[in-house]
Amino acid sequence: MNPVEIILNKRNGYTLSREEIDFFINAYIKGSITDYQMSAWLMAVYFQGLLPDEITALTDCYIRSGKRLVFPEDIIIADKHSTGGVGDKISLMLAPIAAALGLYVPMISGRGLGHTGGTLDKLEAIPGFRTQFTMQELKDITIKHGVCMAGQSSELVPADKKIYALRDVTGTVESPGLITPSIMSKKIAEGAKHLVIDLKVGSGAFMPTLSRAIELAESLIKTGHAFGQKVTVVFTNMNAPLGTHIGNALEVIEAIEYLKGNYLPDTQLITETLVAEMLLSAGRESRFDAAVQSIRTAVESGKALAKFREMIIAQGGDASVCDNYNRFAQVKYRLAIVADRGGFVQSIDSKSIGYALIGVKAGRMKVTDEIDYGSGAVLHPKIGDQIQTGTEIGMLFANDKTAGETAIRRILSCYHFSPEPVPKEDILLGKLTITDFE
Amino acid sequence: MNPVEIILNKRNGYTLSREEIDFFINAYIKGSITDYQMSAWLMAVYFQGLLPDEITALTDCYIRSGKRLVFPEDIIIADKHSTGGVGDKISLMLAPIAAALGLYVPMISGRGLGHTGGTLDKLEAIPGFRTQFTMQELKDITIKHGVCMAGQSSELVPADKKIYALRDVTGTVESPGLITPSIMSKKIAEGAKHLVIDLKVGSGAFMPTLSRAIELAESLIKTGHAFGQKVTVVFTNMNAPLGTHIGNALEVIEAIEYLKGNYLPDTQLITETLVAEMLLSAGRESRFDAAVQSIRTAVESGKALAKFREMIIAQGGDASVCDNYNRFAQVKYRLAIVADRGGFVQSIDSKSIGYALIGVKAGRMKVTDEIDYGSGAVLHPKIGDQIQTGTEIGMLFANDKTAGETAIRRILSCYHFSPEPVPKEDILLGKLTITDFE
Repeated sequence: MNPVEIILNKRNGYTLSREEIDFFINAYIKGSITDYQMSAWLMAVYFQGLLPDEITALTDCYIRSGKRLVFPEDIIIADKHSTGGVGDKISLMLAPIAAALGLYVPMISGRGLGHTGGTLDKLEAIPGFRTQFTMQELKDITIKHGVCMAGQSSELVPADKKIYALRDVTGTVESPGLITPSIMSKKIAEGAKHLVIDLKVGSGAFMPTLSRAIELAESLIKTGHAFGQKVTVVFTNMNAPLGTHIGNALEVIEAIEYLKGNYLPDTQLITETLVAEMLLSAGRESRFDAAVQSIRTAVESGKALAKFREMIIAQGGDASVCDNYNRFAQVKYRLAIVADRGGFVQSIDSKSIGYALIGVKAGRMKVTDEIDYGSGAVLHPKIGDQIQTGTEIGMLFANDKTAGETAIRRILSCYHFSPEPVPKEDILLGKLTITDFE
Repeated sequence: MNPVEIILNKRNGYTLSREEIDFFINAYIKGSITDYQMSAWLMAVYFQGLLPDEITALTDCYIRSGKRLVFPEDIIIADKHSTGGVGDKISLMLAPIAAALGLYVPMISGRGLGHTGGTLDKLEAIPGFRTQFTMQELKDITIKHGVCMAGQSSELVPADKKIYALRDVTGTVESPGLITPSIMSKKIAEGAKHLVIDLKVGSGAFMPTLSRAIELAESLIKTGHAFGQKVTVVFTNMNAPLGTHIGNALEVIEAIEYLKGNYLPDTQLITETLVAEMLLSAGRESRFDAAVQSIRTAVESGKALAKFREMIIAQGGDASVCDNYNRFAQVKYRLAIVADRGGFVQSIDSKSIGYALIGVKAGRMKVTDEIDYGSGAVLHPKIGDQIQTGTEIGMLFANDKTAGETAIRRILSCYHFSPEPVPKEDILLGKLTITDFE
């Protein structure tokens, strides 16, 4: 087969055969198809799209490029994927809660890049916490403790790792045909039988409109189905940073507070919804309200926090952070963030808040950038809140005072006010679950 | 500026600024933008197109990537470009005829690849003939002799050379926005003030439909205009190989025969039309029929052949080939091509004939493949001709008998017959010339 012909076939709108997709991906992994041919193909896919059979074939290639985890039949493997947002620390609560409720969660997570943080970076804010494991280690820890949160090992879908890096620098990320195999291959290869996806929708989010999000959701669910995985998609509104804390150690602290029963409305709603869907999908609960009750009991009984401690220890970390937040990296400066304008919060540019915090090294622009685990911000305002000029609306954490002051100015400019009252926006926008495609 | 943003802007259908195009192309030439980012951008351009201002900016970048030839004001620099076809040796007659009529033709030509031959390969079939010159040498030979036919020096539009090589292997050739700068940059940088373009139209040709060809023609003319160049586009039908000879030495022989006044209908019509348009554009003639008469006089007086000999000598070649065709490389086998079927010729798959002749090394698949200058074929049938089974319709020239026999079988399969009479097809399909865009 000829790589140029396969590029031309997709460019000209033809459906590729499984053999063509296999050849193209495998030759790329082996190095006989170049980066520049792959990126031309990816851009052609962006414009022409992939049909469900092509997406399944591509997902299968990705999975077969590495190893697959196989768990014993008698335990329920479940997981969550989020398309990412500012302050999104849901995984840190969700995984221990689900494990405390009898599910097994081998969660493969990523690092932060650009405006979004990464679960691995957050966990590594815990002194000693390891995130790099072989697939066998990931499996062993998951079976023993019910949960393991780790980075993508080079054994797991290396094809996706290589292609994702290329998509990132060639403007070919936002394509349902490419997003689906990238998300699903990892979650199928890690052995999850039940997957809940938190799909962010909105101007600053992954999918700009609900109709585009539904299209992607359908593709994700169909692909999971082709590999025997049950997928539920929850559409959530990213109209503000999630919770109040943004920054690596800060978000772990917020998660620990949650596991101590100190809920915030938005993170509670999302965490409970996602875990409840996992329990329903797995057949551990048959009614949503009962599932939510079980989740609250797991938290309020201390079982979820105990599971979190257990996971920290299993992954080499210092679980005493749960009792003493001073064990996290400390910053030199804590600067009050004071509202320079006032009114009702009409919109919050979460993306720009994420970028502003890169200035104090709470995140990174390039994968090689270093992170300051202690830096970040605590921000209280949500859409609809009334703010008086001069009120302290949050706190900035930084090791460099000038950078911190710059970040504060940038953060303040991300809040847009109305003189008239603004209604709260819904956080949960909908849900898609299809049990049978026949 | 950020390369990914420029890719995204084009992908999302925005018009790029001159600054963005300058940055992207210059950074690519300097190596700070990678091949894979360029190929993603090229594919985005394929889908979103480029507006005239973007095409002009891109052409300008190409030109400024190298040197420009500047000729004295008192001589008329004119040239022709053909989008390529099987048996297309028009340049070999056109350039000496135009020079014999007082035009100056610094023709930058290419090599054969795939089914189409290249003027440089054909000329190099003449023993000693050199095609590699510096730009200064090209200029000096053109001024002294009225014509020079040479390869693209590394000083002339290196950006196009680098980007064309990438387009060739990434399925991004067929885009008017990319074709225009590629053709026009060379023809503008070489100093041509009058350009005639032979734009092949048809299923086996460069542009599949006349409406696509007109779109490209408009883009070519507008771009020439932006750089003070007058462009005339002649649309020709590639329904059969041009003339009778295909192969490097064979095509030079056919061209010499032409210059001796032994015309064939199709090559005569195209050659005379293109040269006449050059003369009209340059103001050397004011009426088409008078221009054609001057052209015939130049040939029939022997002036055009004398100019061809003068050029061969100026470029280091052996001009005695014009008198003795045995001075060309000879082949071991001359095999008769005998019609295995009969009827009226309904269609000829010229492209496949070109590919069949690669089997006897008359052309090449890869730029590194060697060529047998003496091999090729003489083929007489044209659309509408009546052929009897068993008639000799041509001759195959090869150094390998088995390869020659295989080529004959493949060539015979390229002729499609009808039992009913088939009308001849027009070779000239139209012409586009616009003198004022205001």
